[in-house]
Amino acid sequence: MTTIATDQDVVTLVNVFTVSPDHQQALADLLIEATRAVMNKLPGFVSANIHRSLDGTKVVNYAQWRRVSDFEDMLRNAAAQEHMQAATELAISVEPHLYQVASTDEVV
Amino acid sequence: MTTIATDQDVVTLVNVFTVSPDHQQALADLLIEATRAVMNKLPGFVSANIHRSLDGTKVVNYAQWRRVSDFEDMLRNAAAQEHMQAATELAISVEPHLYQVASTDEVV
Repeated sequence: MTTIATDQDVVTLVNVFTVSPDHQQALADLLIEATRAVMNKLPGFVSANIHRSLDGTKVVNYAQWRRVSDFEDMLRNAAAQEHMQAATELAISVEPHLYQVASTDEVV
Repeated sequence: MTTIATDQDVVTLVNVFTVSPDHQQALADLLIEATRAVMNKLPGFVSANIHRSLDGTKVVNYAQWRRVSDFEDMLRNAAAQEHMQAATELAISVEPHLYQVASTDEVV
């Protein structure tokens, strides 16, 4: 279980993949495999949460890293690069951005 | 605090706003206000989590609704429409999609 809160010491990656619906499941599977084989062993990894859009056209990774520098180190890691390259080849476009949580509201 | 998990009875909205950096804070504030004034009183609202990108060009609302039909009812609500129209006018583009959580991995 991952938590979203304003007082956590994390930086959030929201990576939006646009994908052909016939590649959506393969891309989601690849991202899950990449997380478990490589990403979750890297320094500063906090969480990765893979989402499939109901319309079949998107996959979103909502991920958390401890520091911006941990995310940047991951980008330079050869094994991570190999998985990211494979994901990019399955997608039509990839749009990663780093975020901070500005607010959370939920029903109790 | 919001939780991301595969076994929750929710549908997830990831709404990505592309924005001019000089409008990013105003857009985030507007979405927070819309959540607290209107959205969180609507049937089926579970959570809304507003994120600002570190590069200033994006605002993401990671939101949860109980059912797809609750989200669709919100889209038809006049007060919600008024806030969504104001948000759209502040943004360069708006890309909302509904998702299901395929997997979560986190360090313990």
